[in-house]
Amino acid sequence: MNSPPKRLRGVLSPVLTPFNRDLSPSAPRFIRHCGQLLESGVGLAVFGTTSEANSLSVAEKLGLLDALLGEGFAADRMVPGTGTCAFPDTVELTRHAVQAGCAGVLMLPPFYYKGVSDEGLFRSYATVIDAVNDPRLRIYLYHIPPVSQVGISLKLIERLLKAFPGTIAGVKDSSGDWSNTAAMLKEFQPQGFDVFAGSEAVLLPTLRGGGAGCITAMANVNSANILRLFKTWQNGDAEGQQQALNGTRAIFQKLPIVPAMKAVIAWKSGDEAWGTVRPPLVEPTGVELRQLQAELNADKFEMPNAAALASG
Amino acid sequence: MNSPPKRLRGVLSPVLTPFNRDLSPSAPRFIRHCGQLLESGVGLAVFGTTSEANSLSVAEKLGLLDALLGEGFAADRMVPGTGTCAFPDTVELTRHAVQAGCAGVLMLPPFYYKGVSDEGLFRSYATVIDAVNDPRLRIYLYHIPPVSQVGISLKLIERLLKAFPGTIAGVKDSSGDWSNTAAMLKEFQPQGFDVFAGSEAVLLPTLRGGGAGCITAMANVNSANILRLFKTWQNGDAEGQQQALNGTRAIFQKLPIVPAMKAVIAWKSGDEAWGTVRPPLVEPTGVELRQLQAELNADKFEMPNAAALASG
Repeated sequence: MNSPPKRLRGVLSPVLTPFNRDLSPSAPRFIRHCGQLLESGVGLAVFGTTSEANSLSVAEKLGLLDALLGEGFAADRMVPGTGTCAFPDTVELTRHAVQAGCAGVLMLPPFYYKGVSDEGLFRSYATVIDAVNDPRLRIYLYHIPPVSQVGISLKLIERLLKAFPGTIAGVKDSSGDWSNTAAMLKEFQPQGFDVFAGSEAVLLPTLRGGGAGCITAMANVNSANILRLFKTWQNGDAEGQQQALNGTRAIFQKLPIVPAMKAVIAWKSGDEAWGTVRPPLVEPTGVELRQLQAELNADKFEMPNAAALASG
Repeated sequence: MNSPPKRLRGVLSPVLTPFNRDLSPSAPRFIRHCGQLLESGVGLAVFGTTSEANSLSVAEKLGLLDALLGEGFAADRMVPGTGTCAFPDTVELTRHAVQAGCAGVLMLPPFYYKGVSDEGLFRSYATVIDAVNDPRLRIYLYHIPPVSQVGISLKLIERLLKAFPGTIAGVKDSSGDWSNTAAMLKEFQPQGFDVFAGSEAVLLPTLRGGGAGCITAMANVNSANILRLFKTWQNGDAEGQQQALNGTRAIFQKLPIVPAMKAVIAWKSGDEAWGTVRPPLVEPTGVELRQLQAELNADKFEMPNAAALASG
C-alpha cells in the first residue's frame, strides 16, 4: 500500500470535458488540455460541475481518468469529482481514484432529494468511507448549493471531522457566500481542513484567511493570471490582480459559463468541436459568441497556447 | 419486432425499493411487493422518486427489472423510471425497458444543472429518443419540480409532441400545482397525451378532467382504496372517497413519506428490514414511528396482505 497523499495547495481546475460532435468524450482533447494545465502549474479537479461530470456515465469517467493515468500524468495532482446520487457509483469512482494514487476526491453530497437532514448527509459520506475502507482516502467536500441545492453545513463538517479525522481533508466552497467561506477558514482551516475557494473571485481573501487556494472553472481559460495571484498575493499589486481576474470572469459569466468557456477554446484553438456541450447545456448563439469575443478582445484576453489544444 | 404497447390507464405505483440491512437491494422482497401490486390491479412504475431510484446504480436497476421479468410479470404493466443526469445511462435503461416490452418509461429531465433552457431539455429528450431509435418507445414525462428543481413546461411538451408524435405518450405531474395539471388536461389530453396525477390527492379532478389516472407513492400502502376511487369515480360517494384518501395521505406526509411508508410496511409485515432506506434518507425515530402508528390506527388504516411481504 502506498503512503497517504500529501496535502494540496494552489490552483486547481475543474477540467472542461471535451466532446466529439457525436457527444462522445474526446480523450485526445482531454489529455492535451490536462497536460497544458499541469504544465502551467494547475492541478486537475477533473469531473466537477464545470466538467459536465454528472452528464457522464461512471464508465466514461473511469475511462477518462485512466486515459490521463495512461499518459503518465501525476496522480498526486488529481482530485477527481466522485460524488453522485447513488452511493455504489460514488464508491466505485472513489475507490478507483484512491487506488490510482490521486491526491484526493472532490465529493458532492447526493443531490436528488432536497431538504434532507445533516444526519442523512453524514450517513451518505460515512457509507462511502466505510465501503472504500482505505487509509489513503482524502475527501474534499463539495459545497455548491446554487447548483446541487443540497449544501454542507458547518455543523456537518464538524461532525465529519470528528468521526473521520485525516479522511475529511477540506472543502471546495462554491456557495458564493463569503461569510460561509470565512467561517470555514476560521473554524476548520486551523485543524488542517483545507479550504479552497470555489471561484478565483475570492482567491485573495481566501489566501489572506489562511486558505489553501482555489478550485475554479476559470482556470480552464485564465490559468496564468490566477496562478500569478496565488504566487504573489502578498505583493502590493494583489488587489489590482484580483480586480483584473474579476473583470475577465464577469465577461464569461454573462453567458452560462461552461458553454462560454468551451466556445472560447474552440475560437482560440480553431477546433470547432471544442464548443460541443452535452444537453441540457446549450452552446451560445452566434450573436452571443460574437459579443463575448468582442468583450474579451477589449479586455486583452489571451490564451497563448490554445492552438496546441486543437485536434490534430 | 413487437407491436407498440397499448395506452396506459389506471393506478400505478412508483414501487418502494426494499433493501437488505447492508443497503443492497432485496430482490425477493421487491418481487413479492410487485406481485401483490399487480394482483391488486396496480401498475408498476418502478424506479421513481419513491423508489429511491436515483440512489441506485444503473446495474442495480437493470438487475431489479430483470428479476421482475424473470418472474414472468407482465411487462406491459410496467413503466420504469429511466431518466438520469447522464444521457448514456438514460439510454441504457430506456433501451432495456423498451426491448423488454415495457408499456413505457417515466423520464425525468437531467436534474443536476438548474435554470437550464427549454432548448436544452428538448435536446436532452431528443438525444435519448434518437439513440434508442425504437418505434415501441413510449415516454411519460416526469414533472416533479419540488424535487428535481428542473421542470417540464407546457411549451416544452408542445414542442416535444410536435417533434415526436406517438413517442411522447404522457406525463406524471407531481408539481403539486393543480392549475398546471388542469392546463395539461385541457391542452394535451385531447391529443392522446395521457395525463397522470402525481398524487392520488387529485385523482378525482384528474379523472373528471379526462385524465388517465394517477402514479402515486401511496399506492404502495393504500392501493385498494385508491383503486376503488379510480373504478367508481362517477359514483355519488366519490368526494367522500377522495377525502378519505387525503386523510390517510396527510398522516403519512407528516414525515418524509418514503421512510414513513417503508416503516409502516416493516410494522405491518413484521419484517424489520423493510424499514431500511439508503442515505440521504433516514428512518423515522422511535417516537415518530409510534406517533405514526397511533394516527394510522385511529384512521383504521389496514394493509391486509402485508404479512405476505415479509422475508420468508
